Amino acid sequence: MGLLSEGLTQVVIPLAAVVGIGFALLQWFLVSKVKVSGVYGERNGFKDKLIADEEEGVNSLEVTNKCAEIQHAISIGATSFLFTQYRYLSIFVGVFSTIIFLFLGSVKGFSTKSEACTYNTGNMCKPALANAFFSTVAFLLGAFTSVLSGFLGMKIATYANARTTLEARRGVGKAFITAFRSGAVMGFLLAANGLLVLYITINLFKLYYGDDWEGLYESITGYGLGGSSMALFGRVGGGIYTKAADVGADLVGKVERNIPEDDPRNPAVIADNVGDNVGDIAGMGSDLFGSYAESSCAALFVASISSFGIGHDYTAMSYPLIISSMGIVVCLVTTLFATDLFEIRKVSEIEPALKRQLLISTIFMTAGIAAVTFVSLPSEFTLFSFGTNKAVKNWYLFFCVSIGLWAGLVIGYTTEYYTSNAYSPVQDVADSCRTGAATNVIFGLALGYKSVIIPVFAIAFAIYVSFSLAAMYGIAVAALGMLSTISTGLAIDAYGPISDNAGGIAEMAGMSHKIRERTDALDAAGNTTAAIGKGFAIGSAALVSLALFGAYVSRAGIETVDVLTPKVFIGLIVGAMLPYWFSAMTMKSVGSAALKMVEEVRRQFNTIPGLMEGTAKPDYATCVKISTDASLREMIPPGALVMLTPLVAGTFFGVETLAGILAGSLVSGVQIAISASNTGGAWDNAKKYIEAGGSEHAKSLGPKGSEPHKAAVIGDTIGDPLKDTSGPSLNILIKLMAVESLVFAPFFAAHGGLLFKWL
Amino acid sequence: MGLLSEGLTQVVIPLAAVVGIGFALLQWFLVSKVKVSGVYGERNGFKDKLIADEEEGVNSLEVTNKCAEIQHAISIGATSFLFTQYRYLSIFVGVFSTIIFLFLGSVKGFSTKSEACTYNTGNMCKPALANAFFSTVAFLLGAFTSVLSGFLGMKIATYANARTTLEARRGVGKAFITAFRSGAVMGFLLAANGLLVLYITINLFKLYYGDDWEGLYESITGYGLGGSSMALFGRVGGGIYTKAADVGADLVGKVERNIPEDDPRNPAVIADNVGDNVGDIAGMGSDLFGSYAESSCAALFVASISSFGIGHDYTAMSYPLIISSMGIVVCLVTTLFATDLFEIRKVSEIEPALKRQLLISTIFMTAGIAAVTFVSLPSEFTLFSFGTNKAVKNWYLFFCVSIGLWAGLVIGYTTEYYTSNAYSPVQDVADSCRTGAATNVIFGLALGYKSVIIPVFAIAFAIYVSFSLAAMYGIAVAALGMLSTISTGLAIDAYGPISDNAGGIAEMAGMSHKIRERTDALDAAGNTTAAIGKGFAIGSAALVSLALFGAYVSRAGIETVDVLTPKVFIGLIVGAMLPYWFSAMTMKSVGSAALKMVEEVRRQFNTIPGLMEGTAKPDYATCVKISTDASLREMIPPGALVMLTPLVAGTFFGVETLAGILAGSLVSGVQIAISASNTGGAWDNAKKYIEAGGSEHAKSLGPKGSEPHKAAVIGDTIGDPLKDTSGPSLNILIKLMAVESLVFAPFFAAHGGLLFKWL
Repeated sequence: MGLLSEGLTQVVIPLAAVVGIGFALLQWFLVSKVKVSGVYGERNGFKDKLIADEEEGVNSLEVTNKCAEIQHAISIGATSFLFTQYRYLSIFVGVFSTIIFLFLGSVKGFSTKSEACTYNTGNMCKPALANAFFSTVAFLLGAFTSVLSGFLGMKIATYANARTTLEARRGVGKAFITAFRSGAVMGFLLAANGLLVLYITINLFKLYYGDDWEGLYESITGYGLGGSSMALFGRVGGGIYTKAADVGADLVGKVERNIPEDDPRNPAVIADNVGDNVGDIAGMGSDLFGSYAESSCAALFVASISSFGIGHDYTAMSYPLIISSMGIVVCLVTTLFATDLFEIRKVSEIEPALKRQLLISTIFMTAGIAAVTFVSLPSEFTLFSFGTNKAVKNWYLFFCVSIGLWAGLVIGYTTEYYTSNAYSPVQDVADSCRTGAATNVIFGLALGYKSVIIPVFAIAFAIYVSFSLAAMYGIAVAALGMLSTISTGLAIDAYGPISDNAGGIAEMAGMSHKIRERTDALDAAGNTTAAIGKGFAIGSAALVSLALFGAYVSRAGIETVDVLTPKVFIGLIVGAMLPYWFSAMTMKSVGSAALKMVEEVRRQFNTIPGLMEGTAKPDYATCVKISTDASLREMIPPGALVMLTPLVAGTFFGVETLAGILAGSLVSGVQIAISASNTGGAWDNAKKYIEAGGSEHAKSLGPKGSEPHKAAVIGDTIGDPLKDTSGPSLNILIKLMAVESLVFAPFFAAHGGLLFKWL
Repeated sequence: MGLLSEGLTQVVIPLAAVVGIGFALLQWFLVSKVKVSGVYGERNGFKDKLIADEEEGVNSLEVTNKCAEIQHAISIGATSFLFTQYRYLSIFVGVFSTIIFLFLGSVKGFSTKSEACTYNTGNMCKPALANAFFSTVAFLLGAFTSVLSGFLGMKIATYANARTTLEARRGVGKAFITAFRSGAVMGFLLAANGLLVLYITINLFKLYYGDDWEGLYESITGYGLGGSSMALFGRVGGGIYTKAADVGADLVGKVERNIPEDDPRNPAVIADNVGDNVGDIAGMGSDLFGSYAESSCAALFVASISSFGIGHDYTAMSYPLIISSMGIVVCLVTTLFATDLFEIRKVSEIEPALKRQLLISTIFMTAGIAAVTFVSLPSEFTLFSFGTNKAVKNWYLFFCVSIGLWAGLVIGYTTEYYTSNAYSPVQDVADSCRTGAATNVIFGLALGYKSVIIPVFAIAFAIYVSFSLAAMYGIAVAALGMLSTISTGLAIDAYGPISDNAGGIAEMAGMSHKIRERTDALDAAGNTTAAIGKGFAIGSAALVSLALFGAYVSRAGIETVDVLTPKVFIGLIVGAMLPYWFSAMTMKSVGSAALKMVEEVRRQFNTIPGLMEGTAKPDYATCVKISTDASLREMIPPGALVMLTPLVAGTFFGVETLAGILAGSLVSGVQIAISASNTGGAWDNAKKYIEAGGSEHAKSLGPKGSEPHKAAVIGDTIGDPLKDTSGPSLNILIKLMAVESLVFAPFFAAHGGLLFKWL
């Protein structure tokens, strides 16, 4: 047994979650001090003195009210979209929870009799029907928590955007802190909330399951499935929404009409800003929540059939949750470095401050992992490894978790290298704009392909080490290690769209050039951190999927997945094809929706007199509606592909072919996801590089409106669906298929492979 | 034993090869009747009467001489490039054959003692050193035959291009027959030559090996490696050459200067036309020859360790060669349908005629396979299947070969659907040009991704059936089935670049608009058939690689390749990454070379007075040199990646990791290769669709120079490296790594995995 007693474990985990939630609320409170409405003459924001470079209009009621009005429009748009989406999702959840219950219930013909345990031999376990019921409940809870995470993130983001704009009048440092604190609200709420709900669920389920931990943690996997299936629709629907609006707004506004981004005359501008919140915030939040829930579930499931579970060592069993608890504490400390211990005074300090967050949290967390590992695990134990039991020492697990954590950092920094315009790859892409859009696209695609190399080696290395040391449990905790600093990662990530919105609001509210420059600087740093966040999300998705894959294989009772059998091989090649099929759907959806948006925006410019002159107002609502309708309609086919593939493959082709499909889609999906995200990020920043004109080289390509700049804008537009829709959605494809297979594994093992049985 | 005696087999195979060569020579003779130089007043071409719509200038010496001159320039450029390339290749061949000899010789420490056979237990086999020596010899022969195939193809293509132009004056049907016959020369020469050299090599080696068929067919695998490694450099080098010239010529000529394609004022025009011959002809020829050689070697190797080899049944052993012999005969008959039995009278008949060729050859070949199978195989026998022996009936093999053949047809027709502008996918892409280049690119990429679905299902189905029926031997003969109609496939394929060149020559020689229209129609059909050809090449590459993979696994003594082991899994994910790495290299190479070309072409337009007015001649030679230098320099890094990966992985990580890498690169590479080729093909034809203006819809997007057309040109330019460099090169990546692993398998099995041994 480890040093930490069961009683203390029962205190430590919920305490960490409560501290995380409390910290999030504190940040929210601090952000809320910036007032976006107020009595004329009342001071906005903190009571401290305004800093030296005080700006025009700090106390102007007009500007504040304008900001409040725009914020309100964005918030209304985002909320109404999410509620419409939830209506669709509730139908899905209803149908799918029925499927889960029926499929899993049928494993033993809906028998209510207890049965012998599979792994904990000699003991009796609860009936399969109970597992079906509790899996369904866990699914519902996961779905609910995921939706809540996304929704809260969106709320705080739309709450913070105008406040960031207003703070930008008081200096870039103040604006940075507002945006960052708001990101932190989301990061901590999500991590703490996920942990708390999971903890409570386990304890409640335990009231029924008692000593049957096999059944308990088998049912808990439903939590991961719930979280991830909501994330799928959040990512895909949100991704289509945001990019249809963005591409549509840019194609007419920037390219045809030559008006700036976020210009209030552009009818799609509100839809574009709404999109940032529903896609990049709510979608990203659900995605990472899904990864977190799934890696926890995978680790718990494998542990439950290992010596921890069989020996009923509660503390060791809770190791994944204790790591996450430690993660919350470490991230809390890390956040102080950004908000209190250092102060941003110059634009050039923003990006290093954000990058420093990653490094600080990683270093602290390494120590945290060591501490957690030594207090909560016995020094030696066995882990289930495909039919055999593998003897493992506790310090093996320290290495597994740490290597996941550090692999995340490597992936993050590599992503930064390939997508930041401070380095040569993006500068080369910008340079290729000299000869037009075609060479820009060729170079950008090549950059994306190349950017896959180091992350894949990092993932492979992490997999090799953790797999060798602790089999599938090692992979699961490596994924958790990568996600242990999720609060910081999400804070950095959410910071981006908030700053983007802040810039949009400054432009729309007609604030001075100086303010816009500050928000642009915040936004540019946010672009790179968004790419880093996507890198993390993909890296963790790869590890999580592999862990889930391992759990699935264990639960389905497969002992080898041999490529040299036709069943597995066809699974492998078809699985490798699925990410392409899925990307084709999502990209075409964005394209079609953008075409509709373009037509509407053109129509408004052509038919509303005085629109270009700024004397008439555009009809924002129609554009919002186009994005909403398109995204809700278009999210169904890719969603169906992902949700149905495991069911069809498992039922008709059996567990081996499904294992092949999971492995194939994992190894192929990771590559497309990384390359698509980085290609898009690089094009975006190549354009920004030319626009900013920060060097002799950049100046020779600019200014805005030059031929190279036009070519860069085309690249940026192509990259939008790659980096914000199809790329990030692939994370969910690979995770979700794996977790769904895991949940349905008992059914497939019992009744699957119908087609091969008939032949 | 089958019905065919050993003696008859010894007659049938070389006879078919000789017939094939004879038929190729006959076609060459018929093409040569069109004279490109001649005494004034002498009639060109056939003695038959000129057809009704006789044209101006048929007898004009000036036009004929102009054509001769251009043809000469293209031929000189292509020949000089290939010879320069061969100098580099000879260094590579020298080094690599030494490596083969040393590595394989070291397996048993260069011992000259005979040893016990591995499979044919109880008998003595030749020493490993002999296998090392004969593998090296086979490698050299394969390399030589591959180079010869590419070279002869290029020769006939540059011989035929001007002849096709001249015949176009006499009607589209005449021009079609000339281009098609020339393609047939290449197709038949290549297939027959490959068969003959392989047959002779086997018989010569047998003089030494005698009854040791294990060693004999192990050595023969070197033939596949030789063929494929030359194909690698041919495809990559040729691909970079042709696309650097094409992109460079288009970016300045079409986009900036607004002059037509192939305009003689464009300094890169000769380089562009040379490129078609060295890339699409010589490269494609080497590629398909490689596939053919490899699938034969894989089948022979597996057969040699099965009951055919152990029982010394020569006829059954030669089954792969007999299939190819039958293929030559079937294709010969099929060709007559295009050249003699039907006559093309209208432009609209061209594409159906070419497509009909595929269907006819497939139907006849199915009967041919049935005949061959029943006369040459015993009714029952056993096949080696990863350590066990599988009982197989002869009609199983009929199904294996046929399913490969028909899967090829499905892939071909699917490719046509996605890349021909007669169907909605390409029309949708063209339509998206309305909103600019960005949506065109988004739709094009989505189309490519989508086009992967059916081919992958077809491949998976073929794999499942043939794998289940006859293990790895089934896969190998399925690949052979797909390649059995290679003569027809290559004829159709080579027809494309010849027609493309013919159009170029018509433009450069200043021939009338009517002639150019005819060659354009030939070329448009050629575009689609080129895409079909690429589809075949990729499909067969997938099957071939899998067969080689199976042979490698057998030879390395691996009995399972279990995804659930860290060694294999990291191989899988890194293998899936390699096609991206490789594509990044090749695409960036094309991009950089094209940038140089653009600068040179711009320089010439700016500094040579009278160039735009047509009063001064451009400096073609400098552009040819840029393409030559770039392609030779840039082919080295991707070549090194492919050649070194198996050596490094096998030596340091061992046979299991290497198996993972091969499986990963296979399942991932197939997808990228298909999607890249089809995306590129679709963009090309979307542009042609707008230019041709054949429907109301197309007219609304045109004419040339309209905004949608400009967007389409950008897409076409981006697609060039995708469809002609990176996409097709991936075939070779997956095949070559597999065949190299197969050849080096004894070394890796004996001495590999150093890194894991050290740890």
